[in-house]
Amino acid sequence: MCGIVGFTGRENALPILIKGLYSLEYRGYDSAGIAAFTRDGLRVVKTQGRIASLEEKIQSEGGLSCTCGIGHTRWATHGEPSDRNSHPHLGGRDGQGKVAVVHNGIIENYKELRERLEAHGYTFCSETDTETVAHLVDYLHTGKQEDLAKTVLAAVQRIRGSYALGVVSMDNPEEIVAARRDNPLIIGLGQGENMIASDLTAIIGRTRDYIILDDNEVAIIRPDSVAVMNEFGDVVEKAVQTVTWDMSAAEKGGYQHFMLKEIMEQPKAVADTVNPRIQNNAVVFEENGLTDERLREIENIHIVGCGSALHAGMVGKRVIEAMCRIHCTAEVASEFRYENPIIGKKDLCIVISQSGETADTLAAMRLAKQAGAFTVAIVNVVSSTIAREADGVLYTWAGPEISVATTKAYSSQLSALYLISVKIARTRGLISIGDERALCAELQRLPACIEKALESQQDMQRISTRYANRPSVFFLGRGLDYAAALEASLKLKEISYIHSEAYAAGELKHGTISLIEEGTLVVALATQPALFEKTVSNIREVVSRGAVVVLVTTDDFTGDESVCQHIIRLPKCLYEFSASLSIIPMQLLAYYIAVERNCDVDKPRNLAKSVTVE
Amino acid sequence: MCGIVGFTGRENALPILIKGLYSLEYRGYDSAGIAAFTRDGLRVVKTQGRIASLEEKIQSEGGLSCTCGIGHTRWATHGEPSDRNSHPHLGGRDGQGKVAVVHNGIIENYKELRERLEAHGYTFCSETDTETVAHLVDYLHTGKQEDLAKTVLAAVQRIRGSYALGVVSMDNPEEIVAARRDNPLIIGLGQGENMIASDLTAIIGRTRDYIILDDNEVAIIRPDSVAVMNEFGDVVEKAVQTVTWDMSAAEKGGYQHFMLKEIMEQPKAVADTVNPRIQNNAVVFEENGLTDERLREIENIHIVGCGSALHAGMVGKRVIEAMCRIHCTAEVASEFRYENPIIGKKDLCIVISQSGETADTLAAMRLAKQAGAFTVAIVNVVSSTIAREADGVLYTWAGPEISVATTKAYSSQLSALYLISVKIARTRGLISIGDERALCAELQRLPACIEKALESQQDMQRISTRYANRPSVFFLGRGLDYAAALEASLKLKEISYIHSEAYAAGELKHGTISLIEEGTLVVALATQPALFEKTVSNIREVVSRGAVVVLVTTDDFTGDESVCQHIIRLPKCLYEFSASLSIIPMQLLAYYIAVERNCDVDKPRNLAKSVTVE
Repeated sequence: MCGIVGFTGRENALPILIKGLYSLEYRGYDSAGIAAFTRDGLRVVKTQGRIASLEEKIQSEGGLSCTCGIGHTRWATHGEPSDRNSHPHLGGRDGQGKVAVVHNGIIENYKELRERLEAHGYTFCSETDTETVAHLVDYLHTGKQEDLAKTVLAAVQRIRGSYALGVVSMDNPEEIVAARRDNPLIIGLGQGENMIASDLTAIIGRTRDYIILDDNEVAIIRPDSVAVMNEFGDVVEKAVQTVTWDMSAAEKGGYQHFMLKEIMEQPKAVADTVNPRIQNNAVVFEENGLTDERLREIENIHIVGCGSALHAGMVGKRVIEAMCRIHCTAEVASEFRYENPIIGKKDLCIVISQSGETADTLAAMRLAKQAGAFTVAIVNVVSSTIAREADGVLYTWAGPEISVATTKAYSSQLSALYLISVKIARTRGLISIGDERALCAELQRLPACIEKALESQQDMQRISTRYANRPSVFFLGRGLDYAAALEASLKLKEISYIHSEAYAAGELKHGTISLIEEGTLVVALATQPALFEKTVSNIREVVSRGAVVVLVTTDDFTGDESVCQHIIRLPKCLYEFSASLSIIPMQLLAYYIAVERNCDVDKPRNLAKSVTVE
Repeated sequence: MCGIVGFTGRENALPILIKGLYSLEYRGYDSAGIAAFTRDGLRVVKTQGRIASLEEKIQSEGGLSCTCGIGHTRWATHGEPSDRNSHPHLGGRDGQGKVAVVHNGIIENYKELRERLEAHGYTFCSETDTETVAHLVDYLHTGKQEDLAKTVLAAVQRIRGSYALGVVSMDNPEEIVAARRDNPLIIGLGQGENMIASDLTAIIGRTRDYIILDDNEVAIIRPDSVAVMNEFGDVVEKAVQTVTWDMSAAEKGGYQHFMLKEIMEQPKAVADTVNPRIQNNAVVFEENGLTDERLREIENIHIVGCGSALHAGMVGKRVIEAMCRIHCTAEVASEFRYENPIIGKKDLCIVISQSGETADTLAAMRLAKQAGAFTVAIVNVVSSTIAREADGVLYTWAGPEISVATTKAYSSQLSALYLISVKIARTRGLISIGDERALCAELQRLPACIEKALESQQDMQRISTRYANRPSVFFLGRGLDYAAALEASLKLKEISYIHSEAYAAGELKHGTISLIEEGTLVVALATQPALFEKTVSNIREVVSRGAVVVLVTTDDFTGDESVCQHIIRLPKCLYEFSASLSIIPMQLLAYYIAVERNCDVDKPRNLAKSVTVE
């Protein structure tokens, strides 16, 4: 969802900005651009396409030398991906750009602002919401003695929506002003140089010290100083943090794509998430606020997330309801936040987000917190906004995930949910010590089972090659298999652009079965013995209409498999945890189909990893 | 889901069976067949395709004369649609068919039964589960003096699954034996003749008197007598019912398709459902068990349904939660019944089904009832199984719905849910008498608003012609608009075979947006003013990726519509009831796209109206 970087110091800023943009490219790659102070004044270079295109364009224009500048890589929200809609945007009357702005977020009242600014003589060159910010800053700045930061503060108070902003002005070519509301922004602290960025990967090459800008704050960044003020203009003291992890985790290590590497890393990601929380055959939580007293009092559980995190939540809902007998819902964050949900003071709200910055999930969490629920976050990125604001955090220790389509973070989220479920069930006396011991042993065995499920790799590659040309694919399952099917379908959609859809196996015949025709690929998940026969009946319904069926099931499957073209058998694990295994061949299916279709696996079109707009 | 008919009397049975099959064709039309006693013995004619093909085949084979026979029209579950998988199936060793069977339902243990029968020397000609029943009856019958009915009783006790059966045997060429479990079957009572059928439409041409066979009962039908026994073989007395409605409602009346006729009938269907329940500006329920005391005590509400009925439930969930502040879920019946749902004794379970025979919905209702919840059914067909078994019924007075894709039944279900919501809110003191009066007035105004929404017909026809060739279509909305989008998408899928999908507008960017490319059709629903701006942001995201957008909104829409290609404006109504209006142009869109694509609108492929299998 757009990446922002900025640098001010003594070295040439260009290579630093470009390197920062490359590391932010996972946030969007519709277009890229930079604004920098050169000897000729404020210069902007921008272009549709990826960072590499921007580099070429700068070279073809004779390079660029500067010590202060801002850069942007875009995920389009307002206006198609194009040169003129690329950031930075200039603000100023009569085409005189005195102010340049990069923005991540959505300005909701851009239409009103634009009309008012046009009435004041401003001409707009783009269809973006961001350009209104650039002109607004210029308008408020013109003719006043106020410094840029005060002007930006005045501007953001007129904005409705979300933003992380980087602003530079001709008035002070060494200074960057930054602001944020509901979108992430950090400030990297160096020696005689400082940076702003959407996340740590963009600064880690130059410094490991940083501060996190909070909502409604505005910062003034100069080579030798950083000052932050709150919405009243008062200076605030900020804590300096230090990055502890190692950048080498974020390299491909011989794999063709990050996605395949991350699929293979799943046994480790799950082990790292599970093992530290199991001591003496019992689930032990530290400092996440899920005390026994609180767990005993829970009345309802709301799980909230977006995309794959939501799908993890849908698995979690089923596991928790079955094990703990507590009403549990798994809801789309963007729906939850606007539906005036019924939240009690003894409710638990579990929010799930890999990045910890997902805008809708963050907003949903704030809503639940305000309503008095206890919020616990399942998050992968340490010190992200959601992690900081939640009442308690259960980190998934999956390590940096680079591929836009999530795999290992999703698997780690599942195991975090299993841990919570076992903990609640034991605390409320629904399972015995013996049960807990057995469940913990099964959880610790999961990485080995996943390892075994990864052995389906060759089969999945063969199947993928054969069916890569299908226009529509359907994934079917019941119960936990339905929840897993939703994630399987999303994976395929995201990276192969095939229109696939997941259906509760028993629901397909109520309409959607009309799409099944000769040769349609249907993937059926059946890992729950109690439902084998029912799912087989549904498989026969689609086979009757000409479908080709890939069945993903367990070693002990007893149903009639004769009508299925391909059978993938998974190692035996506790049925409650089977979604952790059935997803493995599905990730491989999506991966190999996308490779076969020549898609850009790690950076699929239109997508971005960290969704910081609504 | 398969239609069964049978006749025994003095006239020629053939035209009576054929006419019956035509009226049951909505239940499935993969193949058709009859078995009848002629001078040459038991004769079977069957063929893939529709009833018309069966008629042709009979004619080409020189016609057929008989006074007793059974017929079947099939919706394939086990085995592809083909001649050999068509019903009736013959039972007997060495290809000697002494017994003929027609079946609606699914035999779950057919595999075991088949193996055992093969070991006893039976050869199978088809892939169906039904053929096992035919051989099983023959096997149990052979060499015994028992009558056919006793044998059928013994056979069904060995069957796991669901069935409505019609069985005839060479031993008594005037007799039909019928049995049922979880699938509907009625017996029509005439003068010197009697019939069996899956529903009333097949008998109404000859008699208006009928009895309803209950689960586990077996009936012996002869020209001059009908006897019913229970599972112990004891004779049971059955009440005789009389059809009260008029068959002329089920004719096309000048429209090209039933679907268009039924779309146009929606103002009347809604008025007929709403008006009798509003007296003196208040919602008044009679005899459906929703007493004030019960409504005051409700702790949770579970709405259960399949397909469009489920979508109506999803609208209802949102309306009820907002108005009544009671936790409410809307769940897929086939999921609910196997998920061991948490149901309390003070819970209300609302089950929705047009036919009142939907197998999964029926099973879900029984489960909720057994768990102690109060069950209320929203059903269109009077005296259907669900209507009879529910604790209370709220009939939708939509009249007979013939088109497989539902329109007026869905709209009536929505208004029934509104009535329940207003009633609960008032009973629990959440709205004032004045509020109730205003809400009732709005409900009574709905038919006129729907009438007005139907004026979009020409626009929708024009738009449909233009976009009928799209391979994928997406429907977006937030909140109530999302629930309506689900139904809009299903309608299009069902009858046009275009792979369409509905998405919560804020969720699309978490993966599925990768499918949006130049020219993709996106239909956005935006009827909730509080969410106008948010939805416009999501529209801009897809327009940025090349989508063509049709916006369905209200008269007072204030957002930026400049990026939308087409705008459909709906008359003003209460926002809570807007799903009743936004669906109207969506039904027309689906209808005209299907017509443009030359699809069989009223009988889409693979579908059946009354889904009586799991």
